[in-house]
This record gives sequence, structure tokens and C-alpha cells, in this order.
Amino acid sequence: MKLVVINPNSTASMTDKIVEAARAVAGSGTEVEGRTAHGAPASIEGHFDEVMCAAHLLREVQEAEAQGADAIVVACFDDPAIGACREVATGPVLGICEAGVKAASMIATSFSIVTTLPRSVPVIEELVRRYGLDHQCRRVRSAEIPVLALEQPGSDARARVRAEILRAIEEDNCEAVLLGCAGMADLTEWLSAECGIPVIDGVTAATTFAEALVRAGLRTSKIGAYAHPIQK
Amino acid sequence: MKLVVINPNSTASMTDKIVEAARAVAGSGTEVEGRTAHGAPASIEGHFDEVMCAAHLLREVQEAEAQGADAIVVACFDDPAIGACREVATGPVLGICEAGVKAASMIATSFSIVTTLPRSVPVIEELVRRYGLDHQCRRVRSAEIPVLALEQPGSDARARVRAEILRAIEEDNCEAVLLGCAGMADLTEWLSAECGIPVIDGVTAATTFAEALVRAGLRTSKIGAYAHPIQK
Amino acid sequence: MKLVVINPNSTASMTDKIVEAARAVAGSGTEVEGRTAHGAPASIEGHFDEVMCAAHLLREVQEAEAQGADAIVVACFDDPAIGACREVATGPVLGICEAGVKAASMIATSFSIVTTLPRSVPVIEELVRRYGLDHQCRRVRSAEIPVLALEQPGSDARARVRAEILRAIEEDNCEAVLLGCAGMADLTEWLSAECGIPVIDGVTAATTFAEALVRAGLRTSKIGAYAHPIQK
Amino acid sequence: MKLVVINPNSTASMTDKIVEAARAVAGSGTEVEGRTAHGAPASIEGHFDEVMCAAHLLREVQEAEAQGADAIVVACFDDPAIGACREVATGPVLGICEAGVKAASMIATSFSIVTTLPRSVPVIEELVRRYGLDHQCRRVRSAEIPVLALEQPGSDARARVRAEILRAIEEDNCEAVLLGCAGMADLTEWLSAECGIPVIDGVTAATTFAEALVRAGLRTSKIGAYAHPIQK
Amino acid sequence: MKLVVINPNSTASMTDKIVEAARAVAGSGTEVEGRTAHGAPASIEGHFDEVMCAAHLLREVQEAEAQGADAIVVACFDDPAIGACREVATGPVLGICEAGVKAASMIATSFSIVTTLPRSVPVIEELVRRYGLDHQCRRVRSAEIPVLALEQPGSDARARVRAEILRAIEEDNCEAVLLGCAGMADLTEWLSAECGIPVIDGVTAATTFAEALVRAGLRTSKIGAYAHPIQK
Amino acid sequence: MKLVVINPNSTASMTDKIVEAARAVAGSGTEVEGRTAHGAPASIEGHFDEVMCAAHLLREVQEAEAQGADAIVVACFDDPAIGACREVATGPVLGICEAGVKAASMIATSFSIVTTLPRSVPVIEELVRRYGLDHQCRRVRSAEIPVLALEQPGSDARARVRAEILRAIEEDNCEAVLLGCAGMADLTEWLSAECGIPVIDGVTAATTFAEALVRAGLRTSKIGAYAHPIQK
Repeated sequence: MKLVVINPNSTASMTDKIVEAARAVAGSGTEVEGRTAHGAPASIEGHFDEVMCAAHLLREVQEAEAQGADAIVVACFDDPAIGACREVATGPVLGICEAGVKAASMIATSFSIVTTLPRSVPVIEELVRRYGLDHQCRRVRSAEIPVLALEQPGSDARARVRAEILRAIEEDNCEAVLLGCAGMADLTEWLSAECGIPVIDGVTAATTFAEALVRAGLRTSKIGAYAHPIQK
Repeated sequence: MKLVVINPNSTASMTDKIVEAARAVAGSGTEVEGRTAHGAPASIEGHFDEVMCAAHLLREVQEAEAQGADAIVVACFDDPAIGACREVATGPVLGICEAGVKAASMIATSFSIVTTLPRSVPVIEELVRRYGLDHQCRRVRSAEIPVLALEQPGSDARARVRAEILRAIEEDNCEAVLLGCAGMADLTEWLSAECGIPVIDGVTAATTFAEALVRAGLRTSKIGAYAHPIQK
Repeated sequence: MKLVVINPNSTASMTDKIVEAARAVAGSGTEVEGRTAHGAPASIEGHFDEVMCAAHLLREVQEAEAQGADAIVVACFDDPAIGACREVATGPVLGICEAGVKAASMIATSFSIVTTLPRSVPVIEELVRRYGLDHQCRRVRSAEIPVLALEQPGSDARARVRAEILRAIEEDNCEAVLLGCAGMADLTEWLSAECGIPVIDGVTAATTFAEALVRAGLRTSKIGAYAHPIQK
Repeated sequence: MKLVVINPNSTASMTDKIVEAARAVAGSGTEVEGRTAHGAPASIEGHFDEVMCAAHLLREVQEAEAQGADAIVVACFDDPAIGACREVATGPVLGICEAGVKAASMIATSFSIVTTLPRSVPVIEELVRRYGLDHQCRRVRSAEIPVLALEQPGSDARARVRAEILRAIEEDNCEAVLLGCAGMADLTEWLSAECGIPVIDGVTAATTFAEALVRAGLRTSKIGAYAHPIQK
Repeated sequence: MKLVVINPNSTASMTDKIVEAARAVAGSGTEVEGRTAHGAPASIEGHFDEVMCAAHLLREVQEAEAQGADAIVVACFDDPAIGACREVATGPVLGICEAGVKAASMIATSFSIVTTLPRSVPVIEELVRRYGLDHQCRRVRSAEIPVLALEQPGSDARARVRAEILRAIEEDNCEAVLLGCAGMADLTEWLSAECGIPVIDGVTAATTFAEALVRAGLRTSKIGAYAHPIQK
Repeated sequence: MKLVVINPNSTASMTDKIVEAARAVAGSGTEVEGRTAHGAPASIEGHFDEVMCAAHLLREVQEAEAQGADAIVVACFDDPAIGACREVATGPVLGICEAGVKAASMIATSFSIVTTLPRSVPVIEELVRRYGLDHQCRRVRSAEIPVLALEQPGSDARARVRAEILRAIEEDNCEAVLLGCAGMADLTEWLSAECGIPVIDGVTAATTFAEALVRAGLRTSKIGAYAHPIQK
């Protein structure tokens, strides 16, 4: 199967990191292809950035399917334009927030989320409520770092994420922690070891769940909300 | 005060109709300006169309504020890109679905919504749940008409909307009906008289609520989710 | 249009303050009339006081409509007897809690409420849940002051309200603060300037929203729960 | 123990019926006293009637406690002024809607409610939601009869209630039916036999639950919302 | 009437304590019989223990009904196998968590729960949500004691429960506290006196509510989920 | 990886069918082993049967892990004893209802469920609410067939399931249908083709999701509710 992981921002180093994380978990028969939404903002930090990436993201979805993608992962924790992606696709499309919270809910009765900037907290809270899992989400927390700090080798971003996870463990009474940014995908193993709690990464969750949907023979329903866009 | 009503699709005749509806209810000191999201799809019928209109809509929001808008109404019942509009604006920004359901909830304990195409029903259901008013919304119904049929003089669109409202009254046990498309704004009075139930139009609700927020001195909070976009 | 703002308690100085707040925001064509529920308790601090004011409040609603009121605001944050007011009225009737939380939800993704006495906290929590906005309300807080302390020039009531708003900003991660008592209406501007966060007053929100409903041609639905009382 | 059952309307024949129903189920050591809210409307059919009965009801609560009541039942399905009753009382106070839905939820996974007039349907729906049991309540139905028709020997009220219960069984997939008016208390046994489904009466549920709270040593909490009213 | 209180664990000293608590509150005409689920784990501390007690518990339910029980109380705060107990019984069956939270909700607008081990906290949170009372439950807390420490005279279990209740009062803004373990039944009066807040015990609440259901003539509905098991 | 699919009832032909369905979708590197809960009831049709299968199911979970299982699927739509299974396991454990509804929510905005007996409808409704997806589940329906009829070649079970799906499409406005019994696993493809709507089978969803969790490196959290049972 061919799985396409789309980075909806234009930072190629993030795409590389995401693809690496996806390949590390994909099944042996799965080809993972990465795509970058060239033309999109360098990072998605709020609704405006979501809008600014959306058309580029959709173009990548369409091209990915045209070139044989069986499933698509949208690798940004704000799950930007997921409804629209599902309209233009025929295979399954998964955002990493949705995949992450649903995975978390399968291995723990409660979890907290650690994201980058404070402004992303209410965005994610709304997503979690939309997915119906607010009763299992203890708290959405911010490590107070910009997304791209995760790309800078010398930054204290990793240390801050680790510190925030430790605060979540101490204060939230949570059973797992979900990383709230695709750019944290490479930290999962280290953080899990450091913090002594299951640390979940949305990219790997979405990758393996997307494979799962393909294997289960499931494709996006074309009846109702996700029907193909009407030609204008 | 200057109120700008933006039609997020590119059909100018809809803009005219919307502006007329807004002007009919605006206060004497309010200047209503209409704007069309040129470059957007001709109608918004699903998530893809929302994405395709969003950047154009944001451009209009920015220009409107640059030219002195005190408040902005986004006149499409899918409330496209409202979060992003609020990020780029400093004054209040209101979508007509949010304004419509909140107005309905102030004059009735329950209401039903009548929209255009069946594919818009789940989109609106999700919005109503996001706004916390699903317990007052009996049902979201479709009149099974494309949006642009409302612009065609000879079409049976009006008759279909009227018939669907009558079905809502008969089957839903609702106390009011909310029109689920900006293109129905000119039908409100006629439908109210025909059907014997309060018929609410989101355009007029959003227009008068936006004026209300301005008069009450309220502007979009710039702390948190709606802070100005980060420059990239 | 004629807008009648009813103070459901019998403290005339509060009526004056409320009317002043309403007049400061009403449109140029709007006549604002204040009414005091003579015979009601001096302040509404709990369910018993609500009951004791209700018949007096209803009398004022009926007289107000008899004398040409187009809309009515009930200026107590407990929204006392709102359902009954809507039954006896034909125009729109708005409580300041409902108006306040719905206004807050339009300019911020989250808000906290600061009220007077601790005993009012659960009363307001229940109202917020009834209006469907508990997911946007971070916390209902008390400044631990009796309502009438807000009327006493020398009291520390203002300082306590200010201090509680600052605590809300520090602890609640909220994007706006809603004042939970009609008697705080005159503090709005000062508190907003002092605290650096949008501070919302229910009286001004209800005043401008009530005007909005009238302009939008909306009246209380007489089908169902708000039908006129049955003569006995 | 002394249990006082208050009829919040002024129709003495209803009080008699209610007291009879309460006595039929009370324990041998329980004295049941009936009280009528003289001065209240003849029946409670909407929010206005609730307001008009409330002060009279509170007077009866206060007198009942002064004369040694250990617990109080408010025998109207709209649970009028329950918060205020709890403020003035020290023992437990139970409304028959709250008691009825909580009893129903203990013997069935789902139930429907059959009340009198259509206008009471939204009132009860809101109560059920407030009590947190909307997920177990299939539907609130009206038999389309005024409350006092239940007092008229020759009326078809009983037949209509029976017919509506049968419709509930056929259409709602419910496991029990709750009678939504104190005036139906005498029909419970007959309806249960006729309809072949557990039929629950709020008066008997509230009577036995109030006794239960007294036996369990529970009294209304005087910390917070139900603290004694503040003297003015 | 005959009321059977079943201790679903195999610790006979807990059964004695539970029966004593039940007898102390039961009506004069009520015979209270205790039963121990011999063969079950010594205490129920998690889902595994629930499973391991369930078949033994069901056997006791069946024998109790065969020997004339009118109602059954399952005296473990995890409400183990309640659905199955209701299937095999014909009279009412009540768990002490369900009874406790419903009693708490009748005398207070909010409550906190104090249980034994931290691992029971999410179990109880899920129950409270299932019963629809999460909006009234401030917090579920653990005193960090194993269940059987409550049976050991010299342990500090009582002091820890008392300390946790005091923390709940200070931090949770709650109006009552519910004891989250049957083994705390004998502490209720002492804790209530010590802590100055209504302290509710599920065993006494379930005992008196079960009596109440019997007096009200209510039996488990045999239509739907609680129908007798199908013979295999 | 080794995936063990446990049939919690004792009907070996169902185990065969389930294993076949699982093998058909599992990845090439996955060994699927079936296990039957010998000693359990022949089918799970209600809470009593759940209890009667639970200890046998747990034994299979423990043996499966002892023999190297990386993940476990519990193949009954009532998700019996899932919490207990997670306590005794260290790898992920998935029930087919949870997997099914979460898969459905990823490819459609709404779905209906078709199960066997009417008595299972409320059981499943409660599960769906527990998983937070009641807002996406249009209706739980019964084909009015006993579970084992699905094992009888000559029965009309298949036709009834197909008919019920067609009713769901016509009446529920749903975008997908989820099969509510493990015994329907072999019908998925046929029903999907017959009915023209995505038909989802919980067994295949749980199989592929369990593989996904293993690949993503996720194991059941041992902090909190799912910690290993305490030795007694």
C-alpha cells in the first residue's frame, strides 16, 4: 500500500522528520511518501495559518491520490481542512490530532496533551471536544515554544516539552501524554523513557491507523458531508 | 459605525441581496458596506468550497478593517474560516450561523434549521454542537436545492423552502425556524407570514448582533486563540 | 424603539446605574426606560430572592409592554423568571447572564465570570450550562462581596472585583472576563483598562442584543413554552 | 417522621389525591400531611404559573418546617421554585420530576414521560437535562389535556393518557413510562396494568425518596447555593 | 419487606459493618439480611476484582430473590455487574455509587467523592458520568489507602479519609462529600461531625432508596436491557 | 507480530469466522491466533452473559500474553470486561465496538449500528456514549435475530441484517453502517455491495487498529485504572 504523509506547512525539514517517524512504524508492505505543502506558511500556529495552508494541502491530497495514494495523513496537530481533504479524497484521510486522541483513549482512561504555543491550546481543546473525547482529556498544555524552535538544534525546546510533560504527570493525574505537534515526532521515544509514562505521537498513530483503515477495506464515505465537491 | 458584510462566495447577486437584508435592519447611524470574495467559488456547498473561499474572505476582512470597518459579518451559513477572520480582525466578526442560532435561542426554547443541500446538514449540525446549542436545535433539514437555485427567478426553490418549513412545524415540535443559507435572506418575511412561526434569518441576526457588540464596546479578544497571526 | 430595562430588585440606585449603562450604549433612536421592581428584595442573592422578586418583575414586564416597550432587559445576573417574562411578553426579553455569556462567546473562545457572593456561583454555573456554554466558561468566581456593597461609595467592592479579575487572568487561562452582577455595570471601562483583558458587562450586552432582536424583527415565539399564560 | 406534601397549586381536590397517593406508599412510622398553596393558580401550566405559585409554596414550606416537618415533597412536575424551597428548609426537599426521573433511571435504562399540555414538554425537557438524565429519557410527550381535566370525572383525560403511553411503547423503544403530572398519581396502578410496562408516578417516588433521605440522616446542605436566605 | 445487602467481596467483617449501617437506617418493617460473595476477592480494587466477584455476586442475588428478597443493594462503590444483577432480579437492585451520587444531588448542587486507592478514581469518574451527574461532581479524590486498611483498627485510614475530606472542602468548593467505599460506612457520622459538611454514605443511601423503590411499587423493568437472561 | 483474537463466547464456529475475518485483513508479518472462551455462554446477549464469559475471557487474555501475544482483540460487540482485560494485559487490548465506532468516525460524519437482539440496543447505546461518539451515531438498530442464528446456514439472519441496513439508509440519514455483532464479520463485503454504503465490521477494525497500536509502540498504560491487579 502507498501511504502519503503531507506536511501542511512549507518547512521541508519537518517533512523529513515526519516521514522518518512514519516510516519507522509503517508495515513492511507500505510505501511511505512525504509531501510538503509548498507555498503554505512555514508553520501552522493558529487559524490564519490553517487557512493559508489549506489550498496547498488540498492540492497535495489531490496529487497524492492521482499518483496512487491509498491513504493520506495530514501531519499537523490542528487537523487543518480535514473535512475538505476527505471531500477530495476517496481513500481514508486522517489528521494527527484525531488519530492521537483516539489512540490515547484506547490505552489509557485519561491523557493530557502538550503542544507548542499557548494560542494553540483552545484550538486543540475544540478539536478534542469535536472528537468527543473531552471527558478523557485532562488538560491541554503548552510548552511555550514556537513550532520552529523544534527544528533548531540548539534550542531548549526539547527540555521545555519534557518539563511540561513532567508537570502534567504531577498535576493532571493523567495516564498518558499526547504530543500536540507533528514537530515533536522524533522526541517520542526519548520522552517516554525520560518521563515514565506512555508518550503518544500523533504522526505514528495516524500512520498506523491510516494503514489500518486501508487494510480493513474502509474508504471515506461519499454519502453526505464528504461527497466529492460539486463542480462550479 | 461602519459594518461590512462579506459574501464569501463570488456571486455578486447574492452580495446585493445580503446587503439589502442587512441595510433593512441596521440602525440609522450604521453604514453597511457589502463585499464579495472575488475569486472564491460561486457558492459554498461543503468543506472544499469553504477552503477555496477562505483566503479571499480573509483578504476582504483585512481590507475592510483597513478601510475603517467597525465590525464584520461573514454571510455564509457554514461560518467559513471564522477563527481566522477573528485573528486578522480587531473588531468583532460574526458568522450568520452562530448569530442565527444564538438569536433563535433567545426567542424560543427550540428551533429547526432549513438549509439548501443535504450535504450541508452534517456541516451545520457540527457548528450547532460547537456553539453549544444542540439541545435546543430539534433538527437540521435540507430543502434539497442547490444554493444558486435561490438566485434563479423561475426556480421552485422558494416553494421547496416553504414546504420544508411546514414539514418542520409538523414533525419537529419546534418553536421557531432558522434559515440555513444567506441566499434565503430575502424570503424571511414572506416565509414568516406563510408559515405562522417565527422565521429567523442569519444575515439580519448577524448584522444587528454585530452592531450590538460594537455599541457595547466589545472587540475580538487578542489574548489567546484570536491573537493576531504570527508574522512568518 | 422603546427599550425597558427592569431592575428586579427594589434598590433604586441600582436602577439608575443600570439605566445609565444602558443609555450609554443604546442606539440614537432608542428610548431607554428604567423600571424598579418595587416590593422586591433590595438585592437578589439566591433562589429565595429570585422568587420574592418574580411577581413584581412580571408586573413591570406587563406594564412596560402595555406602555409600548419593544423589548425588555431583565437586569439581574441570575436571570430570574425569564421564562415567565417571555410568556407574558410579546417582544423579546433578555436576561443579562444569557446576553453576557453569548456576547463573550462571540469575541473569545473562553471566559471566566466574576460575581459577588460565593452562593451565587452554583446558580450561575447552572445558568451557563443551561445556555450551552459551559465548555467556553473557564470558571465562575466570587469576589466575596454582597451585592449592595457595590452601591456603597466607601466599600472595597471595586478593589475586590479588580483583584478577582486579575486572579482569573492568572489562573484560568481565559480570554475575557464577564461581570456577574448588574451592579458592576459602571465598572466595566475602568476594569477593562486596569486589567488588560476584555471585560464584558451583561447590562450593555443585553441592551444592545435586545435592540438587535427588535431590529431583526424577532419577537418571542408564542408557539410552545413561551405561549401566553392560560387564563385561570 | 413527618412528611409534608405540598400541592403548589390551589386546587384542593388535587391535594387530596396527592396525599392519598403519598399515604399509600409511606412507611408505617411516617405521618403524611398535605398542604395546599392557597392563593396560587388552580393549576401550574407554564413558567408564569410557577412564578404565581412560588411565594405561596415557600410560605407552606416554612410553616411545614415550623410545625415539625422532617422532609417536604413539592408535588408539581415542573419542580417549581425547588432551589428556593431548599434555601428556606433545613430538611430535604424533593420535587416530583427530579424524584421521578431518578427513580426511573434506577429500574430501566430508558424511559419516556407523558405529561398534560404540549407547552409543558419543553419545560420538562429542560428539567431532565438539568438533572443529567437526558441520555436516558427517550421522549417527553403530551397527552394534550389541561391539568384540571384530570380532576373532572367525565373527561377523557384518563383515556388520553393511556393512549399516549401506548404510543410511547410503540414508538419510543422505552423500558418504562413516567407520569408527568401530580394529578395522574391515582392512575398509576391502572395504567401499569393496562399498558404492560412499569408506570412511575413522581408523587410516590418523591414520597418514598424523601423518607429515604430522612432515614439516611441527610438534610439539605447549608453550604453554598442552599444556604438560608440572607435577611434583608 | 426484606432487603438483602450483598457485599460483593469475601471479607466478612465488611459485610457485618455494611449490614449494621443498613439496619441503622432501615424502616421498622424492614428485615435487612447481609450476604457475602464467598469466593470473591477480599476487596474490589479495580476492574479485574469486579470480574472476579461478579459470578459470586450474581449467585447471591439469585439466592436472595429465591428466599424472598424484595430489593437488593450491591455494597461496593464500583457498582460491579449492576446490569447483570438487574437482569437476574425482578425487584429493584441498587449499587451504592448510583444511590450515593443521586442522593447527593438531591441535597446539594455539588459534591466531591473521597475513595480509597488512586486507581479507583477513574473507575468512579466513569460511573458518575454514566449516571449523568458529572456536572454536579466537583472531583473524585483518593485517600490513598487500600480498602482493607479500613478494616484494621490500628491503621491511619480514618485519619486519611478525614484529611482528604478537609482538602475537598478547602479546594473543591463542594457542598457535600460522598464516601467512595462501602468500608467507610461506619465513619459517616464521625466524619460529618468532624468536617462540618454533609457526609453521605452510599450504603445508607442505597438501603433507604431500595426501600423507597419497593414502597413505591417499582420493580426492575423486564422490557429491554434488563429482561431475564436468555437460557442457553 | 502476534495478534490474538479472543471470542468471549464458547461457540467455536464463531471463533473460526472471526479469525478468518481477522486474517483477511492483517498485515503480512502478523500471525493471527484465535482463542475461544471455553466455559463461557454460547453467545453474549446481555449483561448476564457478559459476566458469565468474563473470567474465561480473562484467562484467555493471560494465556495469550504468556504465549507471546503483542495485542489482543476481544471479539464481541458488547466489549465485555475490557477494563479488566487491560489490567491483566501489558500490550494493547481492543474491543470491537470501540474499534468499530472509532473507525466509523474517521470515514463518515455519522453512522448507524445494526445489531442482533433488541435487548442489545441499550447496551450498545451506553458503550457509544462512553466512547464519546453518541453525537455521530444516528441510531442503534436491531435486526431482531438471536446471535446464533448468524451461525445457521438456513436462517433468514442475513436477509434481516440487510433489510435493517436498508432501513437505516432510508430513515437515519447516516453515512456509514457499523455491524453490531462479531458474528456478522463474514457478511461485510456482501452487505457493502448490496447496500451501497460503507459497511464497517468491528472485527476487522479492531484487528487492524490493534496492529496499528503495536506498530506505533503503544501499550496499555500501567499508571492508574489499568495498572496490574493487586495480588490478594
